[in-house]
Amino acid sequence: MQRTAELFAIGSELLLGDVLDTNTNYLCKQLTGLGARVCRAVMLPDDVNVIADELRSAAARKRTLLITTGGLGPTEDDQTLKAVAIAFGSELVLNEEAYRMVHERYSQLASEGLVESAEMTEPRKKMAMLPEGAVPIFNPVGTAPAVWLEWQPEHVVLCLPGVPGELKGIWENTLPPLLQRLLGKAYFKLVEVIADLCDESKLAPIVSEASSAHPKVYIKSRASRFGRDVKLKITLSVSSDNREEVDAELNSAVAHIVRLLKENGIKAQVHE
Amino acid sequence: MQRTAELFAIGSELLLGDVLDTNTNYLCKQLTGLGARVCRAVMLPDDVNVIADELRSAAARKRTLLITTGGLGPTEDDQTLKAVAIAFGSELVLNEEAYRMVHERYSQLASEGLVESAEMTEPRKKMAMLPEGAVPIFNPVGTAPAVWLEWQPEHVVLCLPGVPGELKGIWENTLPPLLQRLLGKAYFKLVEVIADLCDESKLAPIVSEASSAHPKVYIKSRASRFGRDVKLKITLSVSSDNREEVDAELNSAVAHIVRLLKENGIKAQVHE
Repeated sequence: MQRTAELFAIGSELLLGDVLDTNTNYLCKQLTGLGARVCRAVMLPDDVNVIADELRSAAARKRTLLITTGGLGPTEDDQTLKAVAIAFGSELVLNEEAYRMVHERYSQLASEGLVESAEMTEPRKKMAMLPEGAVPIFNPVGTAPAVWLEWQPEHVVLCLPGVPGELKGIWENTLPPLLQRLLGKAYFKLVEVIADLCDESKLAPIVSEASSAHPKVYIKSRASRFGRDVKLKITLSVSSDNREEVDAELNSAVAHIVRLLKENGIKAQVHE
Repeated sequence: MQRTAELFAIGSELLLGDVLDTNTNYLCKQLTGLGARVCRAVMLPDDVNVIADELRSAAARKRTLLITTGGLGPTEDDQTLKAVAIAFGSELVLNEEAYRMVHERYSQLASEGLVESAEMTEPRKKMAMLPEGAVPIFNPVGTAPAVWLEWQPEHVVLCLPGVPGELKGIWENTLPPLLQRLLGKAYFKLVEVIADLCDESKLAPIVSEASSAHPKVYIKSRASRFGRDVKLKITLSVSSDNREEVDAELNSAVAHIVRLLKENGIKAQVHE
């Protein structure tokens, strides 16, 4: 069974249009690559009750993994962990390991002269206040640890910082093996077919026929613009816990679509 | 009263991480600039029932404007309009004006030799099947018209294509005056204060004090990374239907935060 995930990009600056969210795309790519299905991604303001409500709804949908990005910093508007505590009926408590991590980072930054002192002020301590039962994950780039809370057996909420460099640093440093254990073994493969035409309406019956014949394969054509030398991209992808099935389904669907294109006089190139 | 909006980015390719969604950021910027508040933005797969459910929930929240992006094309997986029809209890019917628009575009493309003929095939006709009562909006770039449905007085769902160039083409060609009428007169202003430090934890009490003193102003500091010559950005913004109030609130909050920074020995620059 394919595991499911939902994403929550948190920060009013996103909804003001002041910042382009690239974290969601990064996470979708990573999770898809791990064989999980991202069912939904939502962008929310810095409002603790709004965030808590959304988390509760997603939990009710029994997703394996909920990932929040943003709202872990030292300022008061950063309220993601409070929202997680509310949503999962726990309290924020000082987590000793998180405290040690934050302190260690500030000690290092102070020794490099990048901050004035390593003193654990209230705003710094705030980053070590975690929902009860949560585990901190070291942030090698910024200061706020990521947070992993298994709120129910095999159901995790993972809170990551919003600064893209921090998020990627934590991901690459720690997450793939932890997530692979949670998400199970699954395979994902995507193949692109580039069709030598710009008229998507002409592709419609072809995509439709191939989709019906290969219900396990997700086939999508993507319009770009009309013009000479413009080509249309068709992507075919499959997820499964069986690697042979992934390959067999995909190869058969690609062959089918290439044949249909050819029958309609359309040249095609396959990019694996 | 500030009008509210919710956004729906539709397309499984987004959740696979295959495509970075830039439409949501574009729309957030535009709507914020028109004085509206974007409360939430969600990314959804090509699943007609999932989309319809999300639209219904947003409608129950009484938002003034719901905007969907994507899912208007000729292929069968493009199901946004069907979802709108389900959500608002109407049917898809052939809209004559939309038919004329689609036909006109294909006639033009055929005369330029970019498509084989202007014949209105089933996939092309699909783009003219609109929820009953909806009004098509001409697409000067692609073929599928945008769709404007006032499902309740002063409550609109607007469906835009997912190809960014088409979305922007329609927006710039048609939408600002229509939306200004729906959203009313409102003003938005944002000012950036660049603070000469990299330690956000030191800013926390300053942002907190200024926020409490100016509850109508949204004040947000944004972490970047630690390093020499790294500066922190604080954004201050206000929306109101009263232009003088916007200016007065914002000027006063900016002056306050600059004074607090100075008192803490932090240099600041203001960018309007």
